[in-house]
Amino acid sequence: MSSRPMPLSVDLPVKDMPAAPRLPAIQKTDPRALEVGLQQRLSASDEPGAALGRLGQLVLQLAAIQATDERRFERITLISPQLLVFAADHGVADEGVSAFPQAATLRRVLHMLQGQASVNRLVDLQGFELSVVDAGVATHIRLPDDAPPVVPLQLRKIGYGTRNITLSPAMSRAQAVAGLHAGMDVVRHLPGNVLAIGSVGVAGSACASLILSRLCGVQLSDACGVNAGNGQDEALAQRKLERLFAAASRHRKATAPLDVLAAMGGYEIAMMVGAMLQAASERRVVLVDGFVAGAAALIARCLVPEVDGYLVMAHRSSEPGHRLLLIHLQTQPLLDMELHMGQGMGALLAWPMLLAAQRLLEP
Amino acid sequence: MSSRPMPLSVDLPVKDMPAAPRLPAIQKTDPRALEVGLQQRLSASDEPGAALGRLGQLVLQLAAIQATDERRFERITLISPQLLVFAADHGVADEGVSAFPQAATLRRVLHMLQGQASVNRLVDLQGFELSVVDAGVATHIRLPDDAPPVVPLQLRKIGYGTRNITLSPAMSRAQAVAGLHAGMDVVRHLPGNVLAIGSVGVAGSACASLILSRLCGVQLSDACGVNAGNGQDEALAQRKLERLFAAASRHRKATAPLDVLAAMGGYEIAMMVGAMLQAASERRVVLVDGFVAGAAALIARCLVPEVDGYLVMAHRSSEPGHRLLLIHLQTQPLLDMELHMGQGMGALLAWPMLLAAQRLLEP
Repeated sequence: MSSRPMPLSVDLPVKDMPAAPRLPAIQKTDPRALEVGLQQRLSASDEPGAALGRLGQLVLQLAAIQATDERRFERITLISPQLLVFAADHGVADEGVSAFPQAATLRRVLHMLQGQASVNRLVDLQGFELSVVDAGVATHIRLPDDAPPVVPLQLRKIGYGTRNITLSPAMSRAQAVAGLHAGMDVVRHLPGNVLAIGSVGVAGSACASLILSRLCGVQLSDACGVNAGNGQDEALAQRKLERLFAAASRHRKATAPLDVLAAMGGYEIAMMVGAMLQAASERRVVLVDGFVAGAAALIARCLVPEVDGYLVMAHRSSEPGHRLLLIHLQTQPLLDMELHMGQGMGALLAWPMLLAAQRLLEP
Repeated sequence: MSSRPMPLSVDLPVKDMPAAPRLPAIQKTDPRALEVGLQQRLSASDEPGAALGRLGQLVLQLAAIQATDERRFERITLISPQLLVFAADHGVADEGVSAFPQAATLRRVLHMLQGQASVNRLVDLQGFELSVVDAGVATHIRLPDDAPPVVPLQLRKIGYGTRNITLSPAMSRAQAVAGLHAGMDVVRHLPGNVLAIGSVGVAGSACASLILSRLCGVQLSDACGVNAGNGQDEALAQRKLERLFAAASRHRKATAPLDVLAAMGGYEIAMMVGAMLQAASERRVVLVDGFVAGAAALIARCLVPEVDGYLVMAHRSSEPGHRLLLIHLQTQPLLDMELHMGQGMGALLAWPMLLAAQRLLEP
């Protein structure tokens, strides 16, 4: 593949950004304090205690997120669910690590903005509000004049795609911090108490694999397995692994979460980390979509461990690394539908499970 | 446990029932004829072909059920979904093979009829109509005068519980056939084109394990594994296995599907078999709930293999045998929530996935 020169010129200026982010305080949830009371209410109709299986655990988690006083907790109330899809490009796409050209990111974003993607249909069906956030798509997002957007686009571009991580860090530390803060800021202005978080961006899963490998000590070859569903063939898989080894080797000194994010992450990942932390600090339920959002959840948990209780993993995708990531997060996703797309599809599919959990506690 | 005398007196008369059931003709579905066209429509928005994973497969299955002419298939239309919960008791409960006394069946049925069970909440949430069918509860179902039923009860009792299968066949061949026909008849009078099928009845899973073991050649000890979620302890598991071995040994000559059903099945299982066959013959989508309904699906498939294309397996329960059953049916369930209850809970939880599939093909 072409070795694009380091695109210094496409960065946007980041003014006066501190080297360390201002992270919000997150209150630790305490499901155990509620467990006995909820089990009694759930089993009132003569089903055995554990009959509801993981649905019962979901009830407990949602209750713990919303219970400010466990003695007076009455019911789960899910209000005005929001879906944020963070879009960004990755310089490493130049290395041919994806089955799709980088331009596919923009096309997918345009489809979403015009209401033509699969995710738009499920957004309507499930009663979500969708916003697309341009965290760092490689080009200016511009819709044709005769097709105005039906979905709001938030302009938060940190840069026109990250740098090629086989040649340099994906972004500067200041850019990573700016991404975190932008993600936090986007969430601050959203209504509701449920936030689903997904992403779109060619080669995003390559970055997720690198983050998983570095932060969890997973072999890179396991973290970026081959997947036929993505149209990847054996040669592509081999090339991807080889280029990611090169990137991991170049950034071998990056081990702290923010360093890993800056070295091998992406703008959308940085913003998702910030969005998750902010949402949890406001006691929102955070519904985490696919593998790339999962990598953001991993970083978020490293930064503020208390975020954990607010994260609901929506699904396990067909990305082999996603399974390992969920194991390391010590969590089970609600669905396992072998989806191979981000954009919040899995989160939207899983949403009715949260509604069911809410309903079970209604008087 | 007490060895109840063979309760011949509690059978209801079965008049002039033929030894072989009149089974409806079922048209074989042909998903492959639709595959190319649907893939094109689903991937119109630039997602790769297999991106939707098992959701895409569900779209294909539902389309194949509804497509009378694959060249003119437009959209999936799911109308007026119905949930039938078949209730029955099993004489083998006398042998202490369940963590619950037989009386729990009646209590659960009453809760459902009075709208107090978990399933009632999800029925409302998902927009289903629920009917409870008394296929053979051991007592007369009677609600207190001051608590009229909010859910219709269909009186189709074949007998007051089956016989204890460690001592005799569960039911006569004529009763099995009567059960099949009753199940078919119940479905004939239902509106809509989606039928979810669940069951309730203490020791039903013991019968399901025996059916699975006999029809699929699965070791009985694998088919009736221990499950802590059901409140079963080690001693109970040991007793259950021992008593089921005795039953399997007594009925070792039963190998044909209807013989297995009569020897070791239950009234609710017989009716579910009939209901599934009838629903498929009317091209309804059949959403199969838990392990016991799965055993009915197994028998239905033995009787009329074409039923297969109409069955959507809703979930994998925490019953160890259920996993094996699904493997033998060569199908994957939509959900894996470790539920340990029947009554259609898993089917109701899985329903939004069908709505999502429907929505993806809408113009």
